[in-house]
Amino acid sequence: MTNWENCLDLADLSTPALQELIDLAAAYQQGASAPVLTRPVYGANLFFENSTRTKTSFQMAEKKLGIELIEVNPATSSVQKGETLADTVRTLQAIGIDLTVIRHSQTGWYQDLVENPYVNLALVNAGDGAGVHPSQTLLDLLTIQNEFGQIKGLKVGIIGDLAHSRVAKSDAKILKELGASLYFGGPKSWYSEDFDDLGTYGELDQILPELDVVMMLRVQLERFDEANRDAFTAVDYYQQCGLTADRAKLLNEKAIIMHPAPVNRNVEIASDLVDGAKSRIFTQMKNGVYARMAILTKVLQSRGLMEETK
Amino acid sequence: MTNWENCLDLADLSTPALQELIDLAAAYQQGASAPVLTRPVYGANLFFENSTRTKTSFQMAEKKLGIELIEVNPATSSVQKGETLADTVRTLQAIGIDLTVIRHSQTGWYQDLVENPYVNLALVNAGDGAGVHPSQTLLDLLTIQNEFGQIKGLKVGIIGDLAHSRVAKSDAKILKELGASLYFGGPKSWYSEDFDDLGTYGELDQILPELDVVMMLRVQLERFDEANRDAFTAVDYYQQCGLTADRAKLLNEKAIIMHPAPVNRNVEIASDLVDGAKSRIFTQMKNGVYARMAILTKVLQSRGLMEETK
Amino acid sequence: MTNWENCLDLADLSTPALQELIDLAAAYQQGASAPVLTRPVYGANLFFENSTRTKTSFQMAEKKLGIELIEVNPATSSVQKGETLADTVRTLQAIGIDLTVIRHSQTGWYQDLVENPYVNLALVNAGDGAGVHPSQTLLDLLTIQNEFGQIKGLKVGIIGDLAHSRVAKSDAKILKELGASLYFGGPKSWYSEDFDDLGTYGELDQILPELDVVMMLRVQLERFDEANRDAFTAVDYYQQCGLTADRAKLLNEKAIIMHPAPVNRNVEIASDLVDGAKSRIFTQMKNGVYARMAILTKVLQSRGLMEETK
Repeated sequence: MTNWENCLDLADLSTPALQELIDLAAAYQQGASAPVLTRPVYGANLFFENSTRTKTSFQMAEKKLGIELIEVNPATSSVQKGETLADTVRTLQAIGIDLTVIRHSQTGWYQDLVENPYVNLALVNAGDGAGVHPSQTLLDLLTIQNEFGQIKGLKVGIIGDLAHSRVAKSDAKILKELGASLYFGGPKSWYSEDFDDLGTYGELDQILPELDVVMMLRVQLERFDEANRDAFTAVDYYQQCGLTADRAKLLNEKAIIMHPAPVNRNVEIASDLVDGAKSRIFTQMKNGVYARMAILTKVLQSRGLMEETK
Repeated sequence: MTNWENCLDLADLSTPALQELIDLAAAYQQGASAPVLTRPVYGANLFFENSTRTKTSFQMAEKKLGIELIEVNPATSSVQKGETLADTVRTLQAIGIDLTVIRHSQTGWYQDLVENPYVNLALVNAGDGAGVHPSQTLLDLLTIQNEFGQIKGLKVGIIGDLAHSRVAKSDAKILKELGASLYFGGPKSWYSEDFDDLGTYGELDQILPELDVVMMLRVQLERFDEANRDAFTAVDYYQQCGLTADRAKLLNEKAIIMHPAPVNRNVEIASDLVDGAKSRIFTQMKNGVYARMAILTKVLQSRGLMEETK
Repeated sequence: MTNWENCLDLADLSTPALQELIDLAAAYQQGASAPVLTRPVYGANLFFENSTRTKTSFQMAEKKLGIELIEVNPATSSVQKGETLADTVRTLQAIGIDLTVIRHSQTGWYQDLVENPYVNLALVNAGDGAGVHPSQTLLDLLTIQNEFGQIKGLKVGIIGDLAHSRVAKSDAKILKELGASLYFGGPKSWYSEDFDDLGTYGELDQILPELDVVMMLRVQLERFDEANRDAFTAVDYYQQCGLTADRAKLLNEKAIIMHPAPVNRNVEIASDLVDGAKSRIFTQMKNGVYARMAILTKVLQSRGLMEETK
C-alpha cells in the first residue's frame, strides 16, 4: 500500500495510486469541493530557490484547502546562521506547523528528514536540486490526460537541457511507467544517461512528426554565458533546437506543446507558439493548482487532518 | 462612460467619475461598510520598488474588502530569471489571481498588458516609473476635500523635486482638472516642462502667502551625493527650498501642509511642522486606506466580483 | 499596578504580575481558549534582524489569537530610504495597525517610541540589540516552572557568551528576582559585569553538579573568525566550555538542559544531548507560542481589544 504521509517522489507511488492522484486532481479541476479539515491546519512553504509559479500555486492550493500559512523567508531565517535543514524543520514542527512544502537546491533534501525520528510533520517536495519535481509532473500528467484521455500509448518528446532538468527526469520516469513512449532531443552535449533506458534519442526534425506531446524544457540562459568556449548562443540554440514556427508545422494536427515555464520566448520556442492553438503552457499553470490540491489532500488525509473524499 | 476594469491613471476618468471616486473614499472614511464579494477574490501585490506606506496601505484595504492575498516577492521571483512582466502577470492569472496591484520602475508598465489579449485580470497601478501614482493622488484629493469641501478654486503649491516626482505630475494634472490653481516652486534646475501649462512657477516666499495647500515633495537624498558638482547639499536645500518654521509663518491661517512621505525631517520641512497643527501628513496616510478601498471597490464592481454600492 | 499597554522588558513587571503572566502562558499550554477580540485587530511584525524561531512563533501566536497580519519586510521598506523607526511605526499606526512586534539591533529601540506623544499603537519587544528578549525569557520561565513547579530556590547555570547575549541578561535578572540562585560559566574573556551582582562565576566542571537547570548560550560562529588573534576555534570552545557527553554526566538526575537555539551542534553542546532525555530545547520552542500568546493577550486586554480572561 502506498504511504501518503509525505509526497516526495511520485516514483514511490504504485501505478493505481498515481492514477488515483491524477483523478483527484481532475475532480478538483471539475469543481469538486475539498473535504473539510478535521482541525485548524498550519503550513509553511520553504523555498530556498527562487520561484514564482510553484510557490504561488502551492499558496493558492493551500488557501483553497483552508490551510493557515505561516510566512518563513529562508533568506532571512536561521538557516543563514548555519542551522541544518532538519533543525529548521523541527523548529517549525515545535511551533505547531503540520505541513511544510520545501524547494531546496540539495538533491534528495528530504532523505535525512524522513529518517530523522524526531521529524513528524508532513513533507512535500517542491523540487530538489537535480532530483524530481512531483507537483510539476502531476500537473503535466493531468494536462495530458485531459487532452488524450489516457497516458498509455502516447508518444511524448522531451526536448532541451535534459542533463540539468529535474522536470525532465521526473516526468520521463513516470510517463514511461504509465505506458507512454518517450523521445528525447536537443543538444547532444546535454544528453544524460539518466534517460538512456527510458526512450529514444533523435534529431528534432525527425522526432516531431511522431509526437502526440512535445515538452520543451527551459534553458537557463546563464549556461550560454558560461559555455562561451563552445560559442553556443541563445540564437544558435533556437535555430538548432528551438521549436520554431517552421518546425511546429511538422507536428501532428492533434499534437500539443508543453513547457514547464518560465519560457524564454524565441529561445526554446517561438513566441507566437506560446500563445497558439497547440500550446497548453498556461493551461499547465492553471492545472498546477489542482495538482497541488490533490497532493496536499492525500497527505492531509493520511494524517487524519482532513476528512476522507466521498 | 468611464471604464473601471483597471485603475491605471486617474486622468482616464471623467470629472464626474473622479468625483464619485473621491466620494466613495469619503464614505469609507465615514465608516461605510464595503459591499460583499460575489465569490472568493484572490489578489497579489507586486512591488518591484521599495515601499512601506503604499504596500501596507493596499494590504489593509484589500483585507478590509475581504480579498485573499497570495504573497509574491518580486526579488525572489521568476522575473529575476528574465521573464517578462506580461508573462508573470499571465502566470498569476492562470493560478487564479483576480487582481494585481503593481509598482514598477518602468513608466507606463501597464500599456503592454492592457493591449495584451491574453491578460484579463484586474490591474491597479501603485506607481509607474516617472509616470503617475493614482492612489496617492486620490488620497491627496480626499484630504483636501475634507478640509475645504471642494477642490475648485483652491490655490495649491507643489514644491520641490518636480522633475522626478510622479506624485507631483499625477496630482497637478488632476487638481487642475478639478479647478484648482497651481503654483510650483523649488530649485529651478528641478523645474520640468511637464508643469509649464498647469500653473505658475515662483519664489517660495512669494508663493506661500497665497496658498490654501502646500505640498512639499520628497527629495531623494541620493541626488545630493550624485550632484556634488553643484555642491548643493541637504542643508542648502533646506535653507533655500525647505519649509522652515519661519517660512511656515507666511502661510494663511487655514492653509494646510501636505507631503507624500516618507519625510526627510529638516530637509523638505522642519521636523516640528510635520507634527504641527497645519500638517495633514499622517492624515494623508490614514486616508490612503480609504482611497485604496474606493479604487479596489470600483474595479471589483466593474468585473462583477463585488455587489454594487447601495 | 503594572502597565500592560506595551511589553518591552519583563523587569518592568511586579513579581505578582510576572507570575500571572507565566500562569497565563501555562493555561494556554493546557489548552485554554483565547478570549475573543472586541473588534478586528491588525498586527505587523517588524524584524530588522534575521530570525526564524521568534518570528514564526509570534506569527503562530497572533493567528491563534485571531489577529490579522499585515506583511512588512524591513529589507524592502522605507526604513531603507532613511526613515526613522518612529516615523515607520507612526505610518503603520496611521494605516490602522493596532500592534507591532519589533526586533531591532538598537538596544532600547522602544525608548524613543514610548516617549513619543504621537505613538499609541501597542509595542512588543522581540529583542533589542544588547538589551533584552522578554518573550524568550517568559518561555524559559514557563519551561522551568513546568519542570520544577516553581523558580524559587532553583540553581540555574548560564554558560557561554555572556557578554553578547541578550537572552542571558534578560533571563538572569528575572530568574534572580523570582528567587533562583545563579551560576555563570564560559570563557573568562566573555564574562560581563552585568552579571556580577546576580550570581557566582565558576569553572564549568565545578558548577554542573550543583545545577537544576543548565542554560547553554548560543555562540556566534563569526566571533571565532574575527578573534583569530587568540587562536580560539569552535573546536577549542567545545572542549573547554561545551556541554560534552562527559560533562553532562556531572549533572543531577533531575537536571534539565536548555538552549535558546539555533544550536550549533557540537560547539555549545553535543549533538546527542540536544535530542536526549535531559534536553528541553524543542520544548522551549513549543512553549514559545504559549508565552507569546500570553504576552499579546495582556497587551490587547489592557487596550480593550480583547475580552478579559475568565
